[in-house]
Amino acid sequence: MRAAVFNGKGNITVEERPKPSIKESTDAVVRVVRACVCGSDLWFYRGISDLPHGGVGHEFIGVVDEVGSDVKDLSVGDFVIAPFSWSDGTCRNCEHGFHTACVHGGFFGQGGDGDGGQAEFVRVLHADGTLLKVPGSDFTDETLASLLALTDVMSTGYHAAVSAGVQQGWTVAVVGDGAVGLSGVLASKLLGAERIILLGSTTESRHELAREWGATDIISVRGDDAVEHLKALTDGFGADAVLECVGTKESVETAFAIAAAGAIVGRVGVPHDVALDAEGTFYRNVGMRGGPAPARHYQPELLKQVLDGSINPGKVFDASFTLDDIAKAYAAMDERRAIKALVKVSELV
Amino acid sequence: MRAAVFNGKGNITVEERPKPSIKESTDAVVRVVRACVCGSDLWFYRGISDLPHGGVGHEFIGVVDEVGSDVKDLSVGDFVIAPFSWSDGTCRNCEHGFHTACVHGGFFGQGGDGDGGQAEFVRVLHADGTLLKVPGSDFTDETLASLLALTDVMSTGYHAAVSAGVQQGWTVAVVGDGAVGLSGVLASKLLGAERIILLGSTTESRHELAREWGATDIISVRGDDAVEHLKALTDGFGADAVLECVGTKESVETAFAIAAAGAIVGRVGVPHDVALDAEGTFYRNVGMRGGPAPARHYQPELLKQVLDGSINPGKVFDASFTLDDIAKAYAAMDERRAIKALVKVSELV
Repeated sequence: MRAAVFNGKGNITVEERPKPSIKESTDAVVRVVRACVCGSDLWFYRGISDLPHGGVGHEFIGVVDEVGSDVKDLSVGDFVIAPFSWSDGTCRNCEHGFHTACVHGGFFGQGGDGDGGQAEFVRVLHADGTLLKVPGSDFTDETLASLLALTDVMSTGYHAAVSAGVQQGWTVAVVGDGAVGLSGVLASKLLGAERIILLGSTTESRHELAREWGATDIISVRGDDAVEHLKALTDGFGADAVLECVGTKESVETAFAIAAAGAIVGRVGVPHDVALDAEGTFYRNVGMRGGPAPARHYQPELLKQVLDGSINPGKVFDASFTLDDIAKAYAAMDERRAIKALVKVSELV
Repeated sequence: MRAAVFNGKGNITVEERPKPSIKESTDAVVRVVRACVCGSDLWFYRGISDLPHGGVGHEFIGVVDEVGSDVKDLSVGDFVIAPFSWSDGTCRNCEHGFHTACVHGGFFGQGGDGDGGQAEFVRVLHADGTLLKVPGSDFTDETLASLLALTDVMSTGYHAAVSAGVQQGWTVAVVGDGAVGLSGVLASKLLGAERIILLGSTTESRHELAREWGATDIISVRGDDAVEHLKALTDGFGADAVLECVGTKESVETAFAIAAAGAIVGRVGVPHDVALDAEGTFYRNVGMRGGPAPARHYQPELLKQVLDGSINPGKVFDASFTLDDIAKAYAAMDERRAIKALVKVSELV
């Protein structure tokens, strides 16, 4: 099969690799229909984090191609979406809704062999616990894009909003206007936020999508200026809930600074060199929750909303590539020419 | 009036001071019936934190002696309990249940004149928002002690449990067996915890009360040994919720280390030299909430439970003193001879 391979900083190629096969009786092999490039793929692409030479990509939707003998809920030919990590769906952590901490879990596309989503086929461990069957087979490209968004970015934005405890009528601040931050705006709207203040860049295309999805205010300054601006918009109190969708020192500090008394900062931006203020947060009763999104936990509900047309998270994809051209997809993301790059791998039917 | 006065490290005297009077039309003056010494009073007593020379004590129950012209809900002669801070009850922060962040709020007994609870009379600002009227006038000493516990320690333990999101059937870990930690055990039981693991000292009297209030397991070792012990009790997963009731570097580290994936550490121990691990908590989806307890928010519900006999939080008081002997109460707490010292100031009727 054809598969994207990471060869070191800035170097992605597409090569012929062995098609993955069933190794455990609970495995499935999925033929990939759509994949994409994640903001977090840029860490190894930019040489910020390490990744072994090998298969990459943790976001894919596709069709079940083969199942192990203990797979009960899936059949060859089923159209499925995957979360960005596999999980058994039955351990204590999965039962509590934290599938990314599954005792039998792992993350796709970490340089392993055959488990990268940016490829023609993927081996999926614990297939019954991991994959979610999508009813139907006739979908537009737009719907496929929205289903693909549920594999990570929309589920992650939703996790930020759920972790921050967003409630009906609240004023919510979203820090970051990347694909996850924008999805966080949509998620906040879904959960009933009345006012959604996005803190992000000055890129107009991002503002446009944010406004379409429910952002009522956009703050394009940073640091103390951003804090001051947000406070002015909230009678000095700060936001009732804050979604941290970046993970840098500055963005995390801003997130905690704009939280109202008692508010929770829902963190989904992977923290880099972040220091948390134990005392300042304490005296204001400001909390934090979040981490790697248990996408599988949210997918059944979000799938319903995509299929009935309530949400269209696929709009974060503003560039499309073929698998053979995936190096261009990485470059477009790296150079911020694309919010998020979709990769068309095969036809659904 | 007679009032306790802080004169510097280890030095508490009882002196004649001017009886407080109404200064704002929303004030009340309360004649104190019972007061007590708080673990946090020991900080200035031990010279760890600063406090100006003046009135002290933030826990008291008593009888309304005088009201300002704008006080609507209280009358002279009403028996009332106070939270440890005053609040207007109407601002955004009070409406969200975070009365300790009230925009017109403040803490009793910070060396001010006439607002210390360890005295015969206290001036209460924003009396309507602050004081809670107790129906009836015929109470045993035991019930008065339980009502007094609602002014801080029981409300604080309850805040830890609510902040940690304790749910029916959960395994809860409580770090600290001081009066707040013990109250946290009782609160966890109230919220439906099935298993309550107390991490504390080796003091048998504390264990006894903890077991009476619902602790199922007690861990008396510290640090890594405590973490290992708790993990062994929870199949390696950690606790579903953790109450941090101490605030030292070691206790906070232990609290986060014993939290299961997705669990929240409910913090009420004021942090001292604490560093929070931004990344470790992130990858396990471990959260934190908490801070100074909005006692006023919980008091209506807890009052009901005290009056109908469901809870008896006054049992944390294992020593009793007169106001003139309050120096002995501080010493008993300081030397850990008492879990919590009650101070009898006057008769209710």
